[in-house]
Amino acid sequence: MSEQSLDGHPDVTFDRNRGNRIGIEEAVLCQYKSAAQISAILRDALTEGRRLLMTRLMDDQHAALPEDLRGVLDYCAVSRTGILGPLPAVAVSPRIALASAGTSDAGPMAEALRTLSYGGMAATEISDVGVAGLWRLLAREGELREMDVVIVFAGMDAALPSVVGGLVPGVVIGVPTSVGYGVATGGRVALESMLASCAPGVTVVNIDNGYGAATSALRIVNMMRRMQPEK
Amino acid sequence: MSEQSLDGHPDVTFDRNRGNRIGIEEAVLCQYKSAAQISAILRDALTEGRRLLMTRLMDDQHAALPEDLRGVLDYCAVSRTGILGPLPAVAVSPRIALASAGTSDAGPMAEALRTLSYGGMAATEISDVGVAGLWRLLAREGELREMDVVIVFAGMDAALPSVVGGLVPGVVIGVPTSVGYGVATGGRVALESMLASCAPGVTVVNIDNGYGAATSALRIVNMMRRMQPEK
Amino acid sequence: MSEQSLDGHPDVTFDRNRGNRIGIEEAVLCQYKSAAQISAILRDALTEGRRLLMTRLMDDQHAALPEDLRGVLDYCAVSRTGILGPLPAVAVSPRIALASAGTSDAGPMAEALRTLSYGGMAATEISDVGVAGLWRLLAREGELREMDVVIVFAGMDAALPSVVGGLVPGVVIGVPTSVGYGVATGGRVALESMLASCAPGVTVVNIDNGYGAATSALRIVNMMRRMQPEK
Amino acid sequence: MSEQSLDGHPDVTFDRNRGNRIGIEEAVLCQYKSAAQISAILRDALTEGRRLLMTRLMDDQHAALPEDLRGVLDYCAVSRTGILGPLPAVAVSPRIALASAGTSDAGPMAEALRTLSYGGMAATEISDVGVAGLWRLLAREGELREMDVVIVFAGMDAALPSVVGGLVPGVVIGVPTSVGYGVATGGRVALESMLASCAPGVTVVNIDNGYGAATSALRIVNMMRRMQPEK
Amino acid sequence: MSEQSLDGHPDVTFDRNRGNRIGIEEAVLCQYKSAAQISAILRDALTEGRRLLMTRLMDDQHAALPEDLRGVLDYCAVSRTGILGPLPAVAVSPRIALASAGTSDAGPMAEALRTLSYGGMAATEISDVGVAGLWRLLAREGELREMDVVIVFAGMDAALPSVVGGLVPGVVIGVPTSVGYGVATGGRVALESMLASCAPGVTVVNIDNGYGAATSALRIVNMMRRMQPEK
Amino acid sequence: MSEQSLDGHPDVTFDRNRGNRIGIEEAVLCQYKSAAQISAILRDALTEGRRLLMTRLMDDQHAALPEDLRGVLDYCAVSRTGILGPLPAVAVSPRIALASAGTSDAGPMAEALRTLSYGGMAATEISDVGVAGLWRLLAREGELREMDVVIVFAGMDAALPSVVGGLVPGVVIGVPTSVGYGVATGGRVALESMLASCAPGVTVVNIDNGYGAATSALRIVNMMRRMQPEK
Amino acid sequence: MSEQSLDGHPDVTFDRNRGNRIGIEEAVLCQYKSAAQISAILRDALTEGRRLLMTRLMDDQHAALPEDLRGVLDYCAVSRTGILGPLPAVAVSPRIALASAGTSDAGPMAEALRTLSYGGMAATEISDVGVAGLWRLLAREGELREMDVVIVFAGMDAALPSVVGGLVPGVVIGVPTSVGYGVATGGRVALESMLASCAPGVTVVNIDNGYGAATSALRIVNMMRRMQPEK
Amino acid sequence: MSEQSLDGHPDVTFDRNRGNRIGIEEAVLCQYKSAAQISAILRDALTEGRRLLMTRLMDDQHAALPEDLRGVLDYCAVSRTGILGPLPAVAVSPRIALASAGTSDAGPMAEALRTLSYGGMAATEISDVGVAGLWRLLAREGELREMDVVIVFAGMDAALPSVVGGLVPGVVIGVPTSVGYGVATGGRVALESMLASCAPGVTVVNIDNGYGAATSALRIVNMMRRMQPEK
Repeated sequence: MSEQSLDGHPDVTFDRNRGNRIGIEEAVLCQYKSAAQISAILRDALTEGRRLLMTRLMDDQHAALPEDLRGVLDYCAVSRTGILGPLPAVAVSPRIALASAGTSDAGPMAEALRTLSYGGMAATEISDVGVAGLWRLLAREGELREMDVVIVFAGMDAALPSVVGGLVPGVVIGVPTSVGYGVATGGRVALESMLASCAPGVTVVNIDNGYGAATSALRIVNMMRRMQPEK
Repeated sequence: MSEQSLDGHPDVTFDRNRGNRIGIEEAVLCQYKSAAQISAILRDALTEGRRLLMTRLMDDQHAALPEDLRGVLDYCAVSRTGILGPLPAVAVSPRIALASAGTSDAGPMAEALRTLSYGGMAATEISDVGVAGLWRLLAREGELREMDVVIVFAGMDAALPSVVGGLVPGVVIGVPTSVGYGVATGGRVALESMLASCAPGVTVVNIDNGYGAATSALRIVNMMRRMQPEK
Repeated sequence: MSEQSLDGHPDVTFDRNRGNRIGIEEAVLCQYKSAAQISAILRDALTEGRRLLMTRLMDDQHAALPEDLRGVLDYCAVSRTGILGPLPAVAVSPRIALASAGTSDAGPMAEALRTLSYGGMAATEISDVGVAGLWRLLAREGELREMDVVIVFAGMDAALPSVVGGLVPGVVIGVPTSVGYGVATGGRVALESMLASCAPGVTVVNIDNGYGAATSALRIVNMMRRMQPEK
Repeated sequence: MSEQSLDGHPDVTFDRNRGNRIGIEEAVLCQYKSAAQISAILRDALTEGRRLLMTRLMDDQHAALPEDLRGVLDYCAVSRTGILGPLPAVAVSPRIALASAGTSDAGPMAEALRTLSYGGMAATEISDVGVAGLWRLLAREGELREMDVVIVFAGMDAALPSVVGGLVPGVVIGVPTSVGYGVATGGRVALESMLASCAPGVTVVNIDNGYGAATSALRIVNMMRRMQPEK
Repeated sequence: MSEQSLDGHPDVTFDRNRGNRIGIEEAVLCQYKSAAQISAILRDALTEGRRLLMTRLMDDQHAALPEDLRGVLDYCAVSRTGILGPLPAVAVSPRIALASAGTSDAGPMAEALRTLSYGGMAATEISDVGVAGLWRLLAREGELREMDVVIVFAGMDAALPSVVGGLVPGVVIGVPTSVGYGVATGGRVALESMLASCAPGVTVVNIDNGYGAATSALRIVNMMRRMQPEK
Repeated sequence: MSEQSLDGHPDVTFDRNRGNRIGIEEAVLCQYKSAAQISAILRDALTEGRRLLMTRLMDDQHAALPEDLRGVLDYCAVSRTGILGPLPAVAVSPRIALASAGTSDAGPMAEALRTLSYGGMAATEISDVGVAGLWRLLAREGELREMDVVIVFAGMDAALPSVVGGLVPGVVIGVPTSVGYGVATGGRVALESMLASCAPGVTVVNIDNGYGAATSALRIVNMMRRMQPEK
Repeated sequence: MSEQSLDGHPDVTFDRNRGNRIGIEEAVLCQYKSAAQISAILRDALTEGRRLLMTRLMDDQHAALPEDLRGVLDYCAVSRTGILGPLPAVAVSPRIALASAGTSDAGPMAEALRTLSYGGMAATEISDVGVAGLWRLLAREGELREMDVVIVFAGMDAALPSVVGGLVPGVVIGVPTSVGYGVATGGRVALESMLASCAPGVTVVNIDNGYGAATSALRIVNMMRRMQPEK
Repeated sequence: MSEQSLDGHPDVTFDRNRGNRIGIEEAVLCQYKSAAQISAILRDALTEGRRLLMTRLMDDQHAALPEDLRGVLDYCAVSRTGILGPLPAVAVSPRIALASAGTSDAGPMAEALRTLSYGGMAATEISDVGVAGLWRLLAREGELREMDVVIVFAGMDAALPSVVGGLVPGVVIGVPTSVGYGVATGGRVALESMLASCAPGVTVVNIDNGYGAATSALRIVNMMRRMQPEK
């Protein structure tokens, strides 16, 4: 805040040990940070040779970063994420699916996909299978039933997780999206609809929080692997 | 309000001509009326020999009516409706279905059924076909597709109208019910979920308003019959 | 989302059979889609020779489309709709009216009109007949009473559907509009006012959802025609 | 709160001079007071020979008062008001009307009537003239147009004030009532609908606040009389 | 909406007789109208030689009007009002005051002032007398007590109307303003605070609705004058 | 609803195959069902020899059941659950913990415990470790870090899941409880606080939904076991 | 929850060290606890010879306690508090005032008074000085200006803290109360009005939270005393 | 509003005596003021040689000021504050800390810091110590326990004040910040979470109101100093 704090950024207290502690490294939520703050955080990671995942890094925030930082940051506008450093090889087991009700849900779905990649996991994408055209979902039922974790993205009335939750045995996590107008503006109806789902065992994260759903999946992956004998 | 108005009930201004004007007679919403007011309205109808449909007539309100009035009023506690006077013969065409997501939706569904009976229409009941067990609905798909009007009752996340709306060509009217807890308490999530339905052409009425859905169906019936040549 | 999915758009799962199934073809809600997604959907339809209705296609989204697509798309800025392909001949029976409380309701009313046209139906427009100047509505009462379906557009306090619902025997569908300021900002008061209407049998759609009201009318039209003997 | 304060009630600081200052004496809102507090206030007024108007005095609160106080208090259960002391002779000019949409609005309407009586004014009651049966209101139009002040009581969608406001030149004050269910529970839709009224110059008070509307009318009466030359 | 309706504006149904009927001419709420619609309304009035008051005419809407219309329209950016035609001579009796809690309330206060001018009334402005510096209000107490109508403008916690309502005998109308941040964003706290005012007889209009408060004052003026003998 | 449907309960369409399909049998949400409906469901299960879990079975609903049904139903008033039929042997691996912020959270925690028992899983209870006395939680940190799934129950400000989520590597599921007053009444603050948690990968269920959290844990258990080789 | 946990209450984890740590002992919020839980907590404290403050202990909860516990617990129904063990001598410096807008605010004010007594502090009560009768407050202005801390209790529109905050130099803490009806039901308007106060440096606690305001005052007292040299 | 009032600004009624009366000078909330109004206020202060603190002075408002005024105003974009005139020497006793959950809370924290500086107080900044990485806070525990006042800034779920309130004996004031998305958009969850804090004696100000928290701290400082003997 003072000259000193913006230059020397003592106002950032990075949780460097989080990866060891809970198996998930700290990510940086950028939406409410200034370009100066984001730059300082990036340079700090570069200096220390740490990887970094940035979420909700908006187009204009990204554009305001110094060119050298933009050069080393792998930025994805659809998911509004930036990744610094190498991605690990991705594993396909346990099996994770990302299912969306409509193509408008692409942003949060991409955020989840990128977060999983950063965490070393692949995922199967099953897009645009909203329940108004039920055959689209039923055509993928067999595939979905094989999944260990299904993350479901839906806005509007968010009926999809209830139907999926009744069809598949795997873990089902709902991500309400801010897709909708009128009463559905901002995604609150989708959120509350998912929370009130009549299907058992569907859990929910904040609106558009693809990152949160993916990190929850990573917690499950970590626990599942702990169960597994060495190969 | 004055002595006179409570005794002589000049404060009731009954819309006697409504049936002729719009094809639907005025019903009496009882929930906020005193027993004295309800009694006065009933006696007035008895004197004039008019039929009467009373909605949201609560158990304790009904119990507080004079015994002679209780004797002539056909009361149904599930639907909280009272009917004075004879019911017409019921027609089965156009075809109307009432579909509910769960047995907890029985109250508003019964209100709709009684309103339709009062208006001379029968309806097919398809209960407890919520989408978490999708096969229950799909087993009735053929039957539902034959209907002219499908009134769908659902609380909680109210995913049912979206699925029904995508399956059937008939008119679909959603009745959100006040079934649910937590975020779903009171039925607002069900209401907004229906309003945000991704299925085209689903219209909605107030929470628990089985009467409203049924009268809308009666308007449709009236219009459909106008289309029809005499038989 | 991946390179492949944006180019080859496997993330779009179009419900091609919807027209046959429910009598209403799938429309595309564009508001939350990228220009790339909208373009892909349009090209897909062009390739297959399908007609297409796009709703909530904003000015800037339309402007961002490639010139060749803009050339073949019939775009209307007032209704924010785009139509690809030929319009069918329109029928005037059953009779549908669109009535608005004020000229500010023009957008959703135009959306309904365009959706009806796309579905082969004409409609009578009765604009600016809000109840504060009651004579405006009463002057059109006779005409309105002849209608099979009346779609009523109103923002602010949305008193119009209650008055219309008490005057006409036809089907009445309310479209709350986001016209208003202060407590009425966004249209929620209009919506809830319509849901709480004291007139019997008024159903409601989401705020500004002219498309939804029109498709509900088309469902009614389809049912009415099924009733009718061949001519 | 202390022994002393509950017995000797120094915790009541009555605004004895309000009548002189603003032309309206302080009334006592009883709903959240204990029987002990209400009794102390009544005895205080009796000792000093002051008149008193008590509002929102609930049945059970009234029943819990000592018998001697119940004996001297003129209690009205419909309006939930208690009046201590004599009522003044009532004047019929300026002319005030109380118009309600339905008989369920009787409580707040009675509260206004009793408050006006306490302030020395009569009022014309026009009950049950909601807009779904428009002829009921139009039949009284001439009478309403003669009024100086029209207080309109309505719950549900509260469309009545908009129609009245467009028909009459007098002052129009809306009292939303807590009559309604579903979205209309508690009266908030009625309140917001009135605030968003498309008729010019309609002002509004809190839900069920018949007292507030009546005291506003009394302020107008006071001002109108100040205008008038002595007779 | 059709070519014809935009050119020939049959979709505007002006309530020309409102002035005769209720003493207040119809004003035009511009916020949600297109420049084409506003222009058509203005030209229509010019052709017929009618005066016109336009409210919530935003800067960019005004700028989009054809130059000749801008030339004849008296536009005020602070109040966002446009007046077409001559202003009447203003009367100072009955006495009206406009009191604001802060200078940020200037917009709605100016809207009221312009509306009063359009209706032929002057008003005394008492600005920036919020209760946190109580002496500012008390210094004007004598003046305020002489007023027939006091319109109070306040945002944030809107404590001013309660204090004013307890000090003055005149009619008190509260205008909540959209001044505030955090919980006070948009003015809803100010609105509800005014509705819950502990001072008797304070009525309220919609947020920022200076026009509504002024037209209510004009209704009072009209009634007061009716009381008065000719001079 | 008809005589027949209440006696013969054809209005119940039990999802008998759910256990096979998704690994979790259908439970019966009782809160909104009549005693007659609940009895019919119980007798149906008895006849078929099926086990049954009933949730939100209120004290008065339970008391209203016929004595023979009460005799065979294992009812727990704290958790408001009823279990029909034998409980399976419980497994302690994977390890599940239930952690609560306060003793007031006992109800939903007991519902989760009973649901887990019904599904064959044990759980470790760690009660009353809210963050205002942080040492209580830190004293259990080691134990919590060994868990595969931690279900966290908290009302009021629900700060506990954020702290737990930052300390443990296991799956963290938050259950907001309806413990709180003022702004926290009903549990919405707790819910939204959990959804906005700054700890990564915390998912959430509906307010007081111990059943939902437990069934989500069972899905995880099922997936973890699928990973494991036979022993 | 288990037999054991209800009898032996291992599910209570009392924060015994809180008094030493932050100068305020843990109090027990009783509203959502069962009589069994409350009894266990009381017996635990009795056994250990600890004092205890219980808040929101409702009448029926108190009545359900075993007689011996009721005998040793100092219960106050107005404040809904129970105190176990001796009260310390009370200090009058620093000076604390409790000011209320109306007598209906007595409950939360008594809760604060009892909490202060439990913490060893006296307070001056200034009741019923709401701003609608401003002279009541101004008559106490001198006294209030001498206070170190003023806790202000107000429901409805809660205008009092803004006026007090502008008059006195001491610390001002607002306690919104759940006194009010219509929009003011539950106290949210009072809360938000206080949060939006135009007076500088007014802080706020939860609705009806007299305990919270008193403990905040105790923190201030503790800090002020730390400043003071020994006497 | 009139020509005169904009030039001569009689519509500003500055509370010049506030500093003497309550120890805190009036500050100017700029967000809703026009550049003309802000300029007039600044020139007025310059003319009179008064110091001035301006809050919520947005970038574009500052940029719109005349160059000479920009030249004399000490503007800080992070805190959106402007200071006119010299800053006093700052004192470090009593000890005040500003603690934030994340770097995104920098804006309101800077507003508090600037307000304290303007009032002659220094503060210790402890940034980015949110509870998801608990060690960050615990590392500063000793330091925080020495503070007389701790102002805590947090958005999202705002769990920090509950943890801090349970750790430190000093006065704790929470400032919810508008940092968050989805349910946390705008800061309301943070606000309500703080109000429902389970830690005793935490008071709260409006969202982002660093100014309010700082002025509350200044009131405490003033009272603490009054306690202190002269040195």
